Amino acid sequence: MPTPVVLDCDPGHDDAIAILLAAGSPEIDLRAITTVAANQTLGKVTLNAQRICSAAGISVPIAKGCAKPLVRPLHVAEDIHGESGMDGPAFGALSVGVVEHHAIDVMHANMPATLVATGALTNVAMYLQRYGTSAVREIVLMGGSTERGNTTPYAEFNIHVDPEAAAIVFGSGVPVTMVGLNVTHQALVTPEVVARLNALGSLGRICGELMTFFAATYREVFGFEAPPLHDPVAVARVIDPSLVTCVDAFVGIETIGTFTRGATVVDLHGRTREPPNARVAVGLDVERFFEVVIEAVKALS
Amino acid sequence: MPTPVVLDCDPGHDDAIAILLAAGSPEIDLRAITTVAANQTLGKVTLNAQRICSAAGISVPIAKGCAKPLVRPLHVAEDIHGESGMDGPAFGALSVGVVEHHAIDVMHANMPATLVATGALTNVAMYLQRYGTSAVREIVLMGGSTERGNTTPYAEFNIHVDPEAAAIVFGSGVPVTMVGLNVTHQALVTPEVVARLNALGSLGRICGELMTFFAATYREVFGFEAPPLHDPVAVARVIDPSLVTCVDAFVGIETIGTFTRGATVVDLHGRTREPPNARVAVGLDVERFFEVVIEAVKALS
Amino acid sequence: MPTPVVLDCDPGHDDAIAILLAAGSPEIDLRAITTVAANQTLGKVTLNAQRICSAAGISVPIAKGCAKPLVRPLHVAEDIHGESGMDGPAFGALSVGVVEHHAIDVMHANMPATLVATGALTNVAMYLQRYGTSAVREIVLMGGSTERGNTTPYAEFNIHVDPEAAAIVFGSGVPVTMVGLNVTHQALVTPEVVARLNALGSLGRICGELMTFFAATYREVFGFEAPPLHDPVAVARVIDPSLVTCVDAFVGIETIGTFTRGATVVDLHGRTREPPNARVAVGLDVERFFEVVIEAVKALS
Amino acid sequence: MPTPVVLDCDPGHDDAIAILLAAGSPEIDLRAITTVAANQTLGKVTLNAQRICSAAGISVPIAKGCAKPLVRPLHVAEDIHGESGMDGPAFGALSVGVVEHHAIDVMHANMPATLVATGALTNVAMYLQRYGTSAVREIVLMGGSTERGNTTPYAEFNIHVDPEAAAIVFGSGVPVTMVGLNVTHQALVTPEVVARLNALGSLGRICGELMTFFAATYREVFGFEAPPLHDPVAVARVIDPSLVTCVDAFVGIETIGTFTRGATVVDLHGRTREPPNARVAVGLDVERFFEVVIEAVKALS
Ligand SMILES: [Ca+2]
Ligand SMILES: [Ca+2]
Ligand SMILES: [Ca+2]
Ligand SMILES: [Ca+2]
Repeated sequence: MPTPVVLDCDPGHDDAIAILLAAGSPEIDLRAITTVAANQTLGKVTLNAQRICSAAGISVPIAKGCAKPLVRPLHVAEDIHGESGMDGPAFGALSVGVVEHHAIDVMHANMPATLVATGALTNVAMYLQRYGTSAVREIVLMGGSTERGNTTPYAEFNIHVDPEAAAIVFGSGVPVTMVGLNVTHQALVTPEVVARLNALGSLGRICGELMTFFAATYREVFGFEAPPLHDPVAVARVIDPSLVTCVDAFVGIETIGTFTRGATVVDLHGRTREPPNARVAVGLDVERFFEVVIEAVKALS
Repeated sequence: MPTPVVLDCDPGHDDAIAILLAAGSPEIDLRAITTVAANQTLGKVTLNAQRICSAAGISVPIAKGCAKPLVRPLHVAEDIHGESGMDGPAFGALSVGVVEHHAIDVMHANMPATLVATGALTNVAMYLQRYGTSAVREIVLMGGSTERGNTTPYAEFNIHVDPEAAAIVFGSGVPVTMVGLNVTHQALVTPEVVARLNALGSLGRICGELMTFFAATYREVFGFEAPPLHDPVAVARVIDPSLVTCVDAFVGIETIGTFTRGATVVDLHGRTREPPNARVAVGLDVERFFEVVIEAVKALS
Repeated sequence: MPTPVVLDCDPGHDDAIAILLAAGSPEIDLRAITTVAANQTLGKVTLNAQRICSAAGISVPIAKGCAKPLVRPLHVAEDIHGESGMDGPAFGALSVGVVEHHAIDVMHANMPATLVATGALTNVAMYLQRYGTSAVREIVLMGGSTERGNTTPYAEFNIHVDPEAAAIVFGSGVPVTMVGLNVTHQALVTPEVVARLNALGSLGRICGELMTFFAATYREVFGFEAPPLHDPVAVARVIDPSLVTCVDAFVGIETIGTFTRGATVVDLHGRTREPPNARVAVGLDVERFFEVVIEAVKALS
Repeated sequence: MPTPVVLDCDPGHDDAIAILLAAGSPEIDLRAITTVAANQTLGKVTLNAQRICSAAGISVPIAKGCAKPLVRPLHVAEDIHGESGMDGPAFGALSVGVVEHHAIDVMHANMPATLVATGALTNVAMYLQRYGTSAVREIVLMGGSTERGNTTPYAEFNIHVDPEAAAIVFGSGVPVTMVGLNVTHQALVTPEVVARLNALGSLGRICGELMTFFAATYREVFGFEAPPLHDPVAVARVIDPSLVTCVDAFVGIETIGTFTRGATVVDLHGRTREPPNARVAVGLDVERFFEVVIEAVKALS
């Protein structure tokens, strides 16, 4: 039986592929897509969710969530995702709308389900604080790192945008799986992957164009040779846990540091003596990962 | 025309009087009572709201809100308010129930209104994050201090329980009035006030019993000769602004200090060069304040 | 037998009077004056120490100490003490020099003694870290507050300049007496006090001129009607402990707060459950305090 | 001409080899050894410095420095270095004593020189605060990491012991070279290296015994197959800069984080927009590094 999933995201180039992967994989029953301000403002990322769903013929409900992080002002990632938050392809007319309900209410209406979060954790934290933890099966999130970050030396973007929300999620007691940069930086979209996408038809070409834009900003900002496909790795973990190897560990969310705010402090060696509060991804089967991505896009084409 | 008010509280001895003051004053149109964990757990404070409303024949909707602060664990004030959160009187059978909706939804259903908050600011912060700031007329809260605190040397209880929520509220842009200890410590319930309450009949005697218990814990914990009637001062400000003198000031909410977490840092002398974000109570007409309290209890009796 | 004292200061208008009080009181054996950057840069405050000693015929060794706080950059109080750090009077030629040794070495050469500190605690912390705690009899410092601060809402200037140094001093285990704003704000130099100083001859008139300048900046910055004579209150406590009433309390030094850095968190009601680490001044015999000040200036005239 | 060096250390197994490397290399003129509490208490690490110098016939002055970090209590690394701080070999009678002067005074007496620091930075910070920055040529320190730490997930031991001292050093304006775990974890003492040491005679066998103990604790605590020779890498950088590749970068020292205190936040990608304040080691010529180590031990044998 497919796993019921609500996908909370901030599309975002890699979020777009994550949506396709969730919608196009038979192992997942995608119940709803909810949006949160992070990569870009709420209006823009919601429009992007509508765009990619329209392009792919995905008709699950899309609901808007929080327009800003819990405590801090919003800082978007325009340097990485462009002015629209999903620069690159030209999208056609929208064929899907946005439901009236708030993201957290839509999440709850679809419980029990797995929450896959690929943006800031604002909506997820609000959901847990509003509805409690009992209806969520599991939270699988793209965010953090066991090593260095990307927004600051030790903080990854999704966690850095709303560290207090992350602290709520990791402290909630719900089973949390963290898929961080240490793993997603292995999911590099090489020209060969782009070629395979492009060969899949018009949807594949949109994916190819997304990745081409993403490659350019990753090359400029971080000097990467190929861009990492962060968010779909979290979806892949739900599709087939064997794709993403995990260990149990304590993850402390740094909310107060001068230079480290938003760091996910993953205690791989038991130095803090805190009990584990998360499953932390430490390995990725890169080849099979891109297989499931390609298969999903193909299924939707 | 009376001011529409939603009263968010954690009864609590002084919250109980605040409820009576709001319900018994013609200047206020009390639309709903919402509850939040702080003085005691959510179940207890909600039951206490039902008890005082039942005793006073108040029939506005009562709705439960958040059972814990946003980021931190809950620490209740059992040393001050006792095991029930409202120890002292014996209460009769309940004549009012609790609505099914969550506090933040009930708040929104009653907007536009003034939010009077006399507990931790968790519900108010959740409301603002969920529904935005545009429908709230004003927030008048009991909390903080321009001088010393009560829970720690510089932190007052309501703010200390959920400093992140307080940071959200003071940073929201909604007009905020802070009624802190510097003013509420003037509202001392002397034996003469207790005698006047007792003279008002059965509801007055319940008030007297509440104040007698409150007096005992304040004497023991803080060495006060008479207990301060904190929460009703915030309600009084809505009834008649001239009862509580305010100044505009910047209030920084300390969320990270080692010894100062939960402090309300009120910049009375413009030292921080931050623009004012709140009206801060600095004076109280004590005599007229107790007049309006007595009048309200009398009106409900 | 007079108490041996090393006076560590940053003259500073009130430091100047503190020097006179220490040098002119028979109860104190002033062994040395050491200087620290705070009210103004190290060069300026050292020159000011030489100036007041020259004017008063005081010939104890003067030694320069630290030019900057331990961890943070220096922020001087030019708005209060003027460009020279001791604006107001015209001073004559210097008759005293500065010894070659560093303040902390001079402190140690004069131990056992009481350290009276009326500036930032940088030198004192450096001394304790370099020479250990065993030779110091006691540290009596002007700094902090049990109530509001002056540099920020909850931080007093001396502690705010170097909170890490203050943390070292209060955590050292040496007997520490904190004389804070809650007491020194009672030592107001009224026109009547100025008149008494002026009547004492040329040295008295210098004191009067210092106080006249100080009065002007305190009026402008803080709206005080008369300026508080902070630093001499710490000296007075050494001259006659009965002048300054103290209680034992835990004092936490806030080093990390966003809005509260440099706050002295004085646990007067035992809320933190930490054992006392300081004697904290809570009362001042104002009349007798000004008597000893006047007597000291008279003795030096 | 050999580089004049003062070596500030906390022996410590790898400090012992660092002493031998500094004393046995013709490129270095080792002027003095100063000790600081970190791996073990001050008395123990000083005795260890005497032991290794006695064993190797090194007769430079040894001076004791600070017995505790600036602000925080001392936490030693007994799990790694054993009860003596340098468990393993049996040492013979001491042939060298300890000078009476304090480490920071001995440092200054030997300036201008390069300070090589392989323990907590307490002495170095005290030196800079006491004597200023002008006489130090350069500071080369073992500490920190561009990646994960060892004491906590993001903090390396030397920095974690005294983060405030580290903040002083990195903020001082003196040229600082940071040799961190990202590089020293490449300097693994394989059984083959141990065999080469053992072949050098009695001093070599002492080195071998040190490394055998160190290997056991590193295996147990961190699961390393061979122990990393941290401290000598900093000395190697002074002997021949080409052994250790560096880049200029801003390094923020985290002093306030809940989970990240003591982290060295190295901005390799210019994310913080802060100008570089250090040279940061990013590469090691492992083979040539062990050559210079072996050569130095041979030269002293
Ligand atoms: Ca995303
Ligand atoms: Ca309350
Ligand atoms: Ca002073
Ligand atoms: Ca070492």
